[in-house]
Amino acid sequence: MEHEPSAPMAAAFEELTPVGFLRRAAEVFGDRTAILDGDFTCTYAEFHTRAGQSARLLADRGVSPGDRVAVLAPNSHLLLEAHYSVPLCGAVLVALNTRLAAVEVAHILDHSGATVLLVDSELTELAANAVALARSEPLVITDVEHEASLAGREPLAVPVTDERGLLSINYTSGTTGDPKGVMYHHRGAYLQALAMAYHARLAVGSVYLWTLPMFHTNGWCFPWAVTAAGATHRCLRRIDPTAIWQAMAEGVTHFCAAPTVLAMLLAEQSAVPLELPLETEVRVFAGGAPPWPALIAKLDAVGISVEHLYGLTETFGPAVVCIPKPEWSTEPLARRAALIARQGVTNISGHRVRVVDADGADVVADGAHSGEIILRGNTVMLGYYRDPAATARATTADGWFRTGDVGVMHPDGYVEIRDRIKDVIISGGENISSVEVERALTEHPEVNEAAVVGRPHPTWGEVPVAFVQVAPDSSVTVEGLIEFARGRLAGFKIPREIVFGALPKTSTGKVQKNVLRERD
Amino acid sequence: MEHEPSAPMAAAFEELTPVGFLRRAAEVFGDRTAILDGDFTCTYAEFHTRAGQSARLLADRGVSPGDRVAVLAPNSHLLLEAHYSVPLCGAVLVALNTRLAAVEVAHILDHSGATVLLVDSELTELAANAVALARSEPLVITDVEHEASLAGREPLAVPVTDERGLLSINYTSGTTGDPKGVMYHHRGAYLQALAMAYHARLAVGSVYLWTLPMFHTNGWCFPWAVTAAGATHRCLRRIDPTAIWQAMAEGVTHFCAAPTVLAMLLAEQSAVPLELPLETEVRVFAGGAPPWPALIAKLDAVGISVEHLYGLTETFGPAVVCIPKPEWSTEPLARRAALIARQGVTNISGHRVRVVDADGADVVADGAHSGEIILRGNTVMLGYYRDPAATARATTADGWFRTGDVGVMHPDGYVEIRDRIKDVIISGGENISSVEVERALTEHPEVNEAAVVGRPHPTWGEVPVAFVQVAPDSSVTVEGLIEFARGRLAGFKIPREIVFGALPKTSTGKVQKNVLRERD
Repeated sequence: MEHEPSAPMAAAFEELTPVGFLRRAAEVFGDRTAILDGDFTCTYAEFHTRAGQSARLLADRGVSPGDRVAVLAPNSHLLLEAHYSVPLCGAVLVALNTRLAAVEVAHILDHSGATVLLVDSELTELAANAVALARSEPLVITDVEHEASLAGREPLAVPVTDERGLLSINYTSGTTGDPKGVMYHHRGAYLQALAMAYHARLAVGSVYLWTLPMFHTNGWCFPWAVTAAGATHRCLRRIDPTAIWQAMAEGVTHFCAAPTVLAMLLAEQSAVPLELPLETEVRVFAGGAPPWPALIAKLDAVGISVEHLYGLTETFGPAVVCIPKPEWSTEPLARRAALIARQGVTNISGHRVRVVDADGADVVADGAHSGEIILRGNTVMLGYYRDPAATARATTADGWFRTGDVGVMHPDGYVEIRDRIKDVIISGGENISSVEVERALTEHPEVNEAAVVGRPHPTWGEVPVAFVQVAPDSSVTVEGLIEFARGRLAGFKIPREIVFGALPKTSTGKVQKNVLRERD
Repeated sequence: MEHEPSAPMAAAFEELTPVGFLRRAAEVFGDRTAILDGDFTCTYAEFHTRAGQSARLLADRGVSPGDRVAVLAPNSHLLLEAHYSVPLCGAVLVALNTRLAAVEVAHILDHSGATVLLVDSELTELAANAVALARSEPLVITDVEHEASLAGREPLAVPVTDERGLLSINYTSGTTGDPKGVMYHHRGAYLQALAMAYHARLAVGSVYLWTLPMFHTNGWCFPWAVTAAGATHRCLRRIDPTAIWQAMAEGVTHFCAAPTVLAMLLAEQSAVPLELPLETEVRVFAGGAPPWPALIAKLDAVGISVEHLYGLTETFGPAVVCIPKPEWSTEPLARRAALIARQGVTNISGHRVRVVDADGADVVADGAHSGEIILRGNTVMLGYYRDPAATARATTADGWFRTGDVGVMHPDGYVEIRDRIKDVIISGGENISSVEVERALTEHPEVNEAAVVGRPHPTWGEVPVAFVQVAPDSSVTVEGLIEFARGRLAGFKIPREIVFGALPKTSTGKVQKNVLRERD
């Protein structure tokens, strides 16, 4: 190797970290509005200074590099700023789900070993109850105290010395068992933020509305993506259709939402006087479930474009995006909806996605053969915090991350989810996708939501049972709904029983199938 | 550190490389058109297969990992594919400037130690002359032979084992001295490609026209950016306004060009029957010089939006982008043009840019104090190939890359170039920016281009002398032009002499000021 180049010049390297996006925004978009949160507003220059001052405050209160700092707050500038201030003091962010019970918050405080808990005023009671239950004794700092302590403090910025180092821990709200702490690294969050900025087409004039909870998966990395683009964060403390319409009337260009939230939005279309369709198209990223045909058509009509995506806490949020191809726009609505309902393709950051059978071999990419969806790449978590056994369970023999989701690979490379592995119903030796049955039932215009689980059966092993929430003024009967399903599903997939009523859900809105399975 | 997390899971890491974008495109955009090059066309699935087969061919012809493979070709599928096939066999790409003299090509072949030279049929004579002059004896493979040898070969993909490893060497066409080999690394090219895809808003339906030479700075990393987006590459072998209009008529959405090319384009607006303004806006990245007011207005009128950017070979192409802020659109044209004429802000990948004085301290960000522009980050070259002395000269004491350009920092964080350091004229102790004088002269409607250099003077040290190329039908006189400049420049900046005539240029179109300085 006589021509081997000499050592790279020092200028050619910098650790990748999403925290750097704020410094850049302060330098080049310093006078632009960074945050709108009720009466609070600040520019990017101010955001940067405040984050540095908050980092100094944390250090002054004893937070050392590597320590965990928990935050209990709705979508607010406090939580948004913590996405920068906590890593700027070298610590690790633990954003807490505000819908948890005190005992659950206490468990996370203990498990993460957080030494400080930042709390929004509207959640002080939950925080006090949790701290009382916790074995650890985190220092509690309220938003009021935090705000009063910033002014005049010298900003702190502890440099990132390892881009694969720990940035945050996101506790999953699993439908069963204790939550697991998903460890995010700087490199992954940086790349995911870039990918989100690209796919959402966030730009310097964009205004992003915080409908998605920031505590959930670090808001799919949008706290960093929106800042990278120099766009404006507009906080929203709770999902409220009127407030969302109001925000659109005032120039919001982007938000993320589950299809059910979008349906709620359309139902209250007249909440705010607003000429529709919207003058400037609003771009929505929809996750959690595929948007359905009628929803897509109605959103089209009012000027809201929706893109479907899929990911897990373990993959920094959206791992695949259902990138629309130009020719889809001329397809008939039903076909277009079927294309959009697929979860999609790896985002531009380029981690890999496969669908594999029990032997770890790729299934045939025919949209029919199913297997587990597995991933590998820079936007996969480091592992579960203090839980190497769970990390090992989530890893394939050849070192890929197991999503626990069953899907198919379509010939065009788009992945479509069939079910969670544990929700597949096995009846008479046949696999039944609970999602497929649920979709057939929700095609009925009077069905709002459906959840299907397997019930033990002496002959068939399991049989499908459906729990259905119908529209308030619905007159549909169990018999009518079974008849409806018969035209759409093979006989063995028809629910043996249908129960009407509200569905039990976790704090992040997931249906608790484990609860339904235990119902008589 | 009792809570120190265990080792990251294997799934959480992959080396960053732009070569991976092609694998992803083949997987998820496999049936889409990847390349249009005259009669040649291929899909992304075919592009991926062909690149792998070409890699195998190179390996079969003796290319080992780390070897250099030179390519002498215009913008063509051969050169585009080499951006993938060469790294896929583990080798280093050396794309040669097709406008060089044989002796210059020979020098680069020798300096890089290329073992293979891929040649397009229209350049076989230049290649033969260069090889005859070179001390090294590269194996020459023509495009015809290359094409005939691909079919049936098993695709090869040597994995990237170090993302900071050598990807390509780009030889600069300096205005003086021997060209230097700028070493690109995988990580930098990956990040630059993502940044370009983001800023250009390349998407799956985009069609990118190859006006910018691909051999220049690896085409600003667009060979990788366009592929990352799943967009279509449309090759163009030489700058031809009719062909560019034809391409726009056929759906091109993006291209890169110097302002002079855009002016040429507008001059031949009727070359192709086309309804203007264009139905779908065409986005142009303009580099090399700032676009001027009349040009911006005319481009607006026909539906071409232009963004100005700046970079060097050493920074993987565009390091800063003049990101337009929404409020600029309502500014009067002259003011808007002045804003757009600035080089801009760091691209979204987030390397740092500073303007520093002789002591290395940041100049005041007031748009007036000037200093050298320096950079640091992942999109800076590894150094100059086999030239540690030149690498050291290009590095500041504290480890930043020196651009050699003099600029100012505006209060809003936008950088504006004043001059190349060596082109600054020092007259009576005052610094005169040659660029400032050139701009004043080109504001005259009959002046096409101007170059200003310093001439030694017994009293003042130097005085400015202008070389001016006027429009073919111009009647402007030297006296008239000096009078024109007097209204725009301080007295000591007015050229002492103005010479009319064509300007000497390098093979990449840069004015050779060293030649002008030697003219009597």
